[in-house]
Amino acid sequence: MSENTLSSQDRKHLDDLYEYIQEQYRFFVGYPCRGDLDYSELFRFMHYPINNVGDPFVPSTYRVHTRQIECEVVRWFARLTHAPEDNYWGYVTNGGTEGNMYGLFLARELLPEGMVYYSQDTHYSVSKNLRVLKMQNIMIKSQANGEIDYEDLYETIRIHRDVPPIIFATVGTTMTEAIDDIGRIRRMLEDLAIPNSYIHCDAALCGMTLPFIDGAPVYDFRAGIDSISISGHKFIGSPVPCGMVLAKKRNVERIARSIEYVGTLDTTLTGSRNGITPLFLWYAIRKTGTEGFKRLVRECFELADYAIAKFREIGLDAWRNKYAMTVVFPKPPESVLAKWGIAVQGDIAHIIVLPNIKAGQIDELVADIHAAMTD
Amino acid sequence: MSENTLSSQDRKHLDDLYEYIQEQYRFFVGYPCRGDLDYSELFRFMHYPINNVGDPFVPSTYRVHTRQIECEVVRWFARLTHAPEDNYWGYVTNGGTEGNMYGLFLARELLPEGMVYYSQDTHYSVSKNLRVLKMQNIMIKSQANGEIDYEDLYETIRIHRDVPPIIFATVGTTMTEAIDDIGRIRRMLEDLAIPNSYIHCDAALCGMTLPFIDGAPVYDFRAGIDSISISGHKFIGSPVPCGMVLAKKRNVERIARSIEYVGTLDTTLTGSRNGITPLFLWYAIRKTGTEGFKRLVRECFELADYAIAKFREIGLDAWRNKYAMTVVFPKPPESVLAKWGIAVQGDIAHIIVLPNIKAGQIDELVADIHAAMTD
Repeated sequence: MSENTLSSQDRKHLDDLYEYIQEQYRFFVGYPCRGDLDYSELFRFMHYPINNVGDPFVPSTYRVHTRQIECEVVRWFARLTHAPEDNYWGYVTNGGTEGNMYGLFLARELLPEGMVYYSQDTHYSVSKNLRVLKMQNIMIKSQANGEIDYEDLYETIRIHRDVPPIIFATVGTTMTEAIDDIGRIRRMLEDLAIPNSYIHCDAALCGMTLPFIDGAPVYDFRAGIDSISISGHKFIGSPVPCGMVLAKKRNVERIARSIEYVGTLDTTLTGSRNGITPLFLWYAIRKTGTEGFKRLVRECFELADYAIAKFREIGLDAWRNKYAMTVVFPKPPESVLAKWGIAVQGDIAHIIVLPNIKAGQIDELVADIHAAMTD
Repeated sequence: MSENTLSSQDRKHLDDLYEYIQEQYRFFVGYPCRGDLDYSELFRFMHYPINNVGDPFVPSTYRVHTRQIECEVVRWFARLTHAPEDNYWGYVTNGGTEGNMYGLFLARELLPEGMVYYSQDTHYSVSKNLRVLKMQNIMIKSQANGEIDYEDLYETIRIHRDVPPIIFATVGTTMTEAIDDIGRIRRMLEDLAIPNSYIHCDAALCGMTLPFIDGAPVYDFRAGIDSISISGHKFIGSPVPCGMVLAKKRNVERIARSIEYVGTLDTTLTGSRNGITPLFLWYAIRKTGTEGFKRLVRECFELADYAIAKFREIGLDAWRNKYAMTVVFPKPPESVLAKWGIAVQGDIAHIIVLPNIKAGQIDELVADIHAAMTD
């Protein structure tokens, strides 16, 4: 591959892009993707055509892989989410959309006539997933804080008791990091004497924060979920989007298919699979450790509270949900949005105080908003 | 992220894995994934949370991205496949499965009642895609060389003229790198006076080889396709699976949806998207150039012929399709399969003579097979 070198024009193009990214990263405070990344110890692996094709737990004839490491990562997340010890399965995905699609696909195969319920604060990719999977669905109202409206959910399931419910719960909504109460939803289903149901949990961000908070809500397999998707590029951080999907093994076995060509089971949504991101996740997990994650989450909450205080100092109504590092505030003026990479929706905006966010960035953002307001 | 370091035990674990991959790579000759990778110039980008979320051609409020580069790569592939200049669209996928699912999804949205036809030599992921997408489908017989059986296809379409045909054509089958003749299929549809149809082309490997061969079969938009998927980690090579999907822009526009949260269009199957692989593809394309790819393809064919001659010297019936670098030979003994990373299917096996394959590897493999045969 070393036959030629880049032209000086192409090299400049690349350098310009690199500078652009460095510059934009300074103002990158509005998305849940952690930035302080140093995986350079692992770059040597990127000289090989690594591919974790197929099922991570089944050997393949494609032997340039990191499946061993992927399985360790799956096991770590299984413990984190209290997955049933003898009945879990999972793999490293290309991100939340794939993990959520996997959960919904599994639900559809188990309950072909099922009706999917999800709140209006659910991530935008879910309605696309439902369209791809051709699943009938009903959007449920949200409460002001972003949490699903339980009364609307209860009433809607009640009048559709002829079809099995498939609950798509969100643990950390996109805009306000609100948490749907899965225990409460579970009790609703029992109260309605529903015999067959499926609960998928989209815990993209909070799947990596709640386990490290004492007294946090129970959202995982203990709460009665059937599958869960957690992002890897969010709280952990990765230069390449990735995630973890976990499901009950006996459910997955019903869709598995043996493929001679790669000598393994075709149990994943994608075929050829990234073998580098499992390495990144493993590395970050091993380096940080449980105590490290606990400290990081605590520091994020402290800085989120600092941000709220700063916003309030200039008269803005900033707030966060109890277990959230997402700080919500009124949509700032256009000049501020032109400089800062901030997500807006309707009349609100948010910043997400991940471990890479610095107090100095918050100070600068608040000062910019204040200046724009008083212009 | 630098808070802690790896334990010496973890570091050894990593070093052992690295050695394992190096060792396995020596015997990696049976899969279409090129290995001589040096993207180290680009590793500096991997310190940032790069994400090409959403449509590559539409700006987003997520500004840490490489969309500009991705669009250049899309344009390069559009020219390569003679996409209609004012009516194409595409993006860098996570690999062939996603590109093929995208083409099928688009076909289903345009022709909801359509019937998918594909040969029995089609990649194994396609039947999974069809299941996910809930598309009715019929598998067509293959010829001995792996090409679709045109008579079976014609007869099958003829007796299902009440539903629009969706042709899933393969340009380079998995096992024998056979090429379905898209021009011929197109003429069949005309002959049967079919008013509405869709052709998706899975050109995972050959999409990067046929354009560099004089007189090669026409398989792209000139032949009347509606979408195409080409892998990036195969002939180009990448440590992370990736690919390109191209489709007609006016078809894609019918499924686009605007998302305020990321300020862009949700036209891709995945949401958060890898921004590193577009950089890899761009870099490899710019470094190699058209003349470079022509030379590489020519050298691969020469070495494939060398391999065939070597196999025949020991009495094995090895062969390749006319435009293929896949050399097919009888399934070797188990002892050979234990050492070499070779794909088998039924009683045949293959090696794929990509640019990283060396004559020495072929010599060693043939010697091993010979020794095992005479044991």
